[in-house]
Amino acid sequence: MAEPSLIFPATEYRLRVTRLQRRMQADGQDALLLTTPADVFYVTGFLTRFWESPARPWFIVVPATGAPIAVIPAIGADLMRRCWVTDIRIWDAPDPEDDGVSLLADTLTALVPETGSIGVPMRLETQLRMPLADYARVGARIAPRRFVDATDTVQRVREVKSEAEIEKIRAICGVADRTFARVPDFAGAGRPLDQVFRDFQIALLQEGADWVSYVAGGAGPGGYGDVISPAGSRPLAPGDVLMLDTGAVRDGYFCDFDRNYAIGKADDAARRAHAALFTATDVALSDLRPGMTARDLYDLLTGALHMQGAKPGSGRLGHGLGVTLTEWPSVTAKDGTVLREGMVLTLEPGVEIAPGKIMVHEENIVLRADGAELLSARTPPELPEFH
Amino acid sequence: MAEPSLIFPATEYRLRVTRLQRRMQADGQDALLLTTPADVFYVTGFLTRFWESPARPWFIVVPATGAPIAVIPAIGADLMRRCWVTDIRIWDAPDPEDDGVSLLADTLTALVPETGSIGVPMRLETQLRMPLADYARVGARIAPRRFVDATDTVQRVREVKSEAEIEKIRAICGVADRTFARVPDFAGAGRPLDQVFRDFQIALLQEGADWVSYVAGGAGPGGYGDVISPAGSRPLAPGDVLMLDTGAVRDGYFCDFDRNYAIGKADDAARRAHAALFTATDVALSDLRPGMTARDLYDLLTGALHMQGAKPGSGRLGHGLGVTLTEWPSVTAKDGTVLREGMVLTLEPGVEIAPGKIMVHEENIVLRADGAELLSARTPPELPEFH
Repeated sequence: MAEPSLIFPATEYRLRVTRLQRRMQADGQDALLLTTPADVFYVTGFLTRFWESPARPWFIVVPATGAPIAVIPAIGADLMRRCWVTDIRIWDAPDPEDDGVSLLADTLTALVPETGSIGVPMRLETQLRMPLADYARVGARIAPRRFVDATDTVQRVREVKSEAEIEKIRAICGVADRTFARVPDFAGAGRPLDQVFRDFQIALLQEGADWVSYVAGGAGPGGYGDVISPAGSRPLAPGDVLMLDTGAVRDGYFCDFDRNYAIGKADDAARRAHAALFTATDVALSDLRPGMTARDLYDLLTGALHMQGAKPGSGRLGHGLGVTLTEWPSVTAKDGTVLREGMVLTLEPGVEIAPGKIMVHEENIVLRADGAELLSARTPPELPEFH
Repeated sequence: MAEPSLIFPATEYRLRVTRLQRRMQADGQDALLLTTPADVFYVTGFLTRFWESPARPWFIVVPATGAPIAVIPAIGADLMRRCWVTDIRIWDAPDPEDDGVSLLADTLTALVPETGSIGVPMRLETQLRMPLADYARVGARIAPRRFVDATDTVQRVREVKSEAEIEKIRAICGVADRTFARVPDFAGAGRPLDQVFRDFQIALLQEGADWVSYVAGGAGPGGYGDVISPAGSRPLAPGDVLMLDTGAVRDGYFCDFDRNYAIGKADDAARRAHAALFTATDVALSDLRPGMTARDLYDLLTGALHMQGAKPGSGRLGHGLGVTLTEWPSVTAKDGTVLREGMVLTLEPGVEIAPGKIMVHEENIVLRADGAELLSARTPPELPEFH
């Protein structure tokens, strides 16, 4: 009988665990403790929106060999049993006296030799999703076993996607592509931006998103101010540049790209900005190769913008993508992460049109042996105008 | 000129900070370090879906007196300037060399005397949203100043809602009420559950939700198995009990309640279960008073279920509600938190209909001096049937 599993066949998860265990061995870790929604989903296929409740911690322990162990609140037992994990240890959470501390400490103690170490992601772009005081209590209980940093262990494995993962990301990118094509139907002059954000989410759901974890955007005359604010009620007006950006989710995988539109006729500065972003993205699409670093990609994009006389915006110009909206590496001047075949990335160059007015453009790609393959449909070269 | 602020007037945030500072003084903390979306939003009004990206940490420091200081990634500066906070310190994140560590350490060092302590929520239902290694680095940099637990400091303040907050929760409960009334339009026999989940989210957006952070539910003959799984593609069938539950968001505030429906004619066990849940909720609605504990409320609900010969489900029977889907306290036999006037709570009794078949019912209330006031429209006493 085939093992039960969700989203992917169990073989997909076994391969992931094997890859993690190979890294753990190289990095000298006897077990791995994972606590975040993304890490838990990656290893087990356990997918739920219940993470939205911060009430309870969840633990997956990856031993040096063999299948992972789930140490989780009882409310998750039913769903975890439908995943491929068979060793499921539960407690009634939240428990103000002992919220999984003893169960987790006992699990680690039995699994790891006294001189051993347990990897926990601790550095850039990681979080520990459990109360800090309970982490300290577990640490004291398992001594002399030690917690050590496992950021690289997890990131170097998760960042290279399987073909099955790439197809999931391609599918949700397709949902967003179809949705962006419908934007003219609900985002004309006179429409308040907050209503456009709602209609955009509705269209994403209609096109097949399971849920919409992220919508952002902006609108303003000739450009927008920032890209993370919630929408206000100001109606769109002729001369506005509108940007919509989404991290929609299907089967637990994210897309993350945006599109720009002119309401009415675009002014020259906006058209030039869009053309510069399009060309810079083209340069990256044609020149990016495995073995380059995130910093090299940053140089490609900023170089192409400078060449066209455009001023690159601040901040990173892309990032990893997969089971969270953003993953490492960051396309910045400081990130030396090597880009490898199978990595899924966003290309996200931005320009400053004028002080306080920016334009940001984003595509999603997978890096192949011979270069970038688009997962999002390429934006049109000219800034689209709604008349 | 009035101070700029988002969602609420600045006076609302000033009052919150004053209440926090009063607790900090009582608890012996010279500053408070906040890192989670909920805590940052609570103190500043900074509301964004950008938290979906785990790439960057964000810090709010509440000093012993005066206004909070924002130590945040540059990408958030524009939005934070539109809040009432004026002391905004930024860095280009993510920075693999120093991701806000120096800026935060310098801020804390200048603010807190050498013998002083900085409160950080560390216990039940808290998380630290920053890399663990960077937390340790900051701790080393600010020594001999110490981090101490501030769970009570934050929770005792946040759990009592202002009238302005209660109105926000009432508004999003109204959105969900109107949406639940429309469920018969899209959830008849033959409809796959995953499509029902999508249509439910679409209806919530149409009724005025800004976004839908949480949808859960279940469906099965005479009852459902668990309440946190994503929807499958099985079509609803006559005899099914369908439950839909939502944490929709408007202006940063959540509702969290559910409704049950019978597809076709409900069987006797399902009708009895619904009646038992309705009656147990009625008992709580009529007998709950400030000064009782979460445990007392648990006893009220389980007592009323037992009285009717129903078997209470496992897990907690309610929780706090506000700027996250679930807040403390937990309505369990172990939680001694005193329920006070102004607390917003869910009443969420569940029963086991048969092994593997449960029914859960949920309402949202605010606790007033004279008892519970409903924020959700009361569910009908009889299990609704779709024919």
